Amino acid sequence: MSEVLNLTKELILRPSITTDDAGCQLLIAQRLQRAGFRCEHLRFGEVDNLWATHGEGEPTLVFLGHTDVVPPGPREAWTSDPFVPEIRDGVLYGRGAADMKGSVAAFVIALERFVAAHPQHRGRVALLLTSDEEGDAIDGVRRVADVFRERGEQIDWCVTGEPSSKAKLGDLLRVGRRGTLSATLLVRGIQGHVAYPEKARNPIHQAMPALAELAARRWDDGYESFPPTSLQISNINAGTGANNVIPGELRVLFNLRYNPNWRAAQLEHECETVLRAHGLDYQVQWHRGGEPFFTPEGPLRATAREVLATFAGDAPEESTGGGTSDARFIAPLGAQCIEIGPVNASIHKVDEHVSVADLEALPELYLALIGRMLL
Amino acid sequence: MSEVLNLTKELILRPSITTDDAGCQLLIAQRLQRAGFRCEHLRFGEVDNLWATHGEGEPTLVFLGHTDVVPPGPREAWTSDPFVPEIRDGVLYGRGAADMKGSVAAFVIALERFVAAHPQHRGRVALLLTSDEEGDAIDGVRRVADVFRERGEQIDWCVTGEPSSKAKLGDLLRVGRRGTLSATLLVRGIQGHVAYPEKARNPIHQAMPALAELAARRWDDGYESFPPTSLQISNINAGTGANNVIPGELRVLFNLRYNPNWRAAQLEHECETVLRAHGLDYQVQWHRGGEPFFTPEGPLRATAREVLATFAGDAPEESTGGGTSDARFIAPLGAQCIEIGPVNASIHKVDEHVSVADLEALPELYLALIGRMLL
Repeated sequence: MSEVLNLTKELILRPSITTDDAGCQLLIAQRLQRAGFRCEHLRFGEVDNLWATHGEGEPTLVFLGHTDVVPPGPREAWTSDPFVPEIRDGVLYGRGAADMKGSVAAFVIALERFVAAHPQHRGRVALLLTSDEEGDAIDGVRRVADVFRERGEQIDWCVTGEPSSKAKLGDLLRVGRRGTLSATLLVRGIQGHVAYPEKARNPIHQAMPALAELAARRWDDGYESFPPTSLQISNINAGTGANNVIPGELRVLFNLRYNPNWRAAQLEHECETVLRAHGLDYQVQWHRGGEPFFTPEGPLRATAREVLATFAGDAPEESTGGGTSDARFIAPLGAQCIEIGPVNASIHKVDEHVSVADLEALPELYLALIGRMLL
Repeated sequence: MSEVLNLTKELILRPSITTDDAGCQLLIAQRLQRAGFRCEHLRFGEVDNLWATHGEGEPTLVFLGHTDVVPPGPREAWTSDPFVPEIRDGVLYGRGAADMKGSVAAFVIALERFVAAHPQHRGRVALLLTSDEEGDAIDGVRRVADVFRERGEQIDWCVTGEPSSKAKLGDLLRVGRRGTLSATLLVRGIQGHVAYPEKARNPIHQAMPALAELAARRWDDGYESFPPTSLQISNINAGTGANNVIPGELRVLFNLRYNPNWRAAQLEHECETVLRAHGLDYQVQWHRGGEPFFTPEGPLRATAREVLATFAGDAPEESTGGGTSDARFIAPLGAQCIEIGPVNASIHKVDEHVSVADLEALPELYLALIGRMLL
């Protein structure tokens, strides 16, 4: 059995449902320490973070990942136990196989091989892991980035192992991510009986034209290689369950995914202008989940493109689509950030899986990238 | 202590939260049987109904009421226990004091006195009580009306004791009610991740323009003495709680209160035309809660006006406003229906109450009405 397959299976066996690391980082730290890495455990609240470095000086190339996984849901929905890795027809099944214990194992194998072959490489090569990427992401990489900022820790390049590939390994290179901004909106009305609408003020009726305007708005047509900014109402709730009561309040959650054309503060201002224009009695709490980032053409992106073309046969699509990743916290430190990982079709679903062939190719891919950047 | 005050307190002591009668009807039936009434208990499902009659032939005058009350909510919100009647400063407090155990007690006292004084009165005088007026109203007067229809039971006049008065006892005579029509609407979208709106179809975004159009519509300007027809969205719910998921479904409850200008079927057609025009993938269940009724000028309305003027000093306002009442089920039997009861300011609220003076006047008022109609 290959080293990377073996380590991936050991990680899947640890049921590290966010934010529980379940011993994954200790296992990895023990291996990397044997390989000559300095390991630092940064625990904040219930969250484990591991910072492992090898070498000195500049530049610094960081691999970024997470050991936590999303909950598997009911056991009976899975073909095999989500926390007992199983290979069927050349495919490894288990929660985290693709997102992202396979990538994390590949990082470890690539780093071990690289420092064994090149103990005197230039600069630093490092691994940063968290157990809170799938959760609130408060005490994970966000907090570590604060520590790095205080220390003046310099990071030049960051490679996240999020499952980015679409149909085959290496067909997509992530070079940026949209920002995410969430709103918790409360619209106040006056409760009453449906038979006496003139004595009440229905917050649903009041809010609908404003919400319809926000939902219909075309914020932009995209920016460089970014898709258009989008607002989606994800939750809307009002009412007591009774059909004869006009509710006193309406609660709405909405989320904006936005490109670097916008700053969070501008979007907040635009949304509140609409809410005020419709005369709503409202209260809104904004949660800035992460500003967008974008890695323009440069040495890391160019090298990654070449490496991926070697593995996939064709030049990769270079994309800024998709959700968010922890790279949003590292990019503001001045790092160029890219994301390269396995096929993402099964992530967050039942029977999550990764092809064994792809998994075995991943350490080679990361190793080629380290070699080109640090030799 | 007066008879009516005593009986009202006995009824409040029985915590008859809809649809539990909690022994109220048995207490009343025992009294009326002693007074010479024939009492019939009609129990459907969990609901108790009492039908008590005195006399034979035509015409039939029915007093209509309910023994159930709405839940009191948290005890600590009340100044005194909602199920322990308490008099403070000439006001009787307790759940049901105004809606409508006070009226029910007054009915009983008036009926006892009337038949004692006039055992050979013409026609029939009757009392119909249910324990499901505040609930779904399925197994209450609706079912009793079905029985009456099968039996060919003739009802000429019906006086409901719902708390109709605004500022002082007898200032309002209810001569009709709007109809009520409820919709349970499901709008189907396609669930997805907020980062990929192009792969999902947000049912909130889709439904808002249609709902805004329904809410903004002016259905009519009123009809005879009826207020305008009104649509109110009472409940709206979508979302998993997570802010990164576009929900797959939106659920909405809305209710129409309508005047005799409309039939339920027409309103259903109008609403569905709007839903279809906006291209919604929807499913709607309609619940026809009761067609409107209207009692035009006639002997009952004229007599009631005179009696109320005697008690209140001025001629009453004659109104068709407010919610629904069980009279909606009796009116289609061909009965003229009116409603006369105490001041309604505190109903369905904490510290529900009725003035002791009003309560003591109520049996006199009902007795005057019976006398004018049946002597």
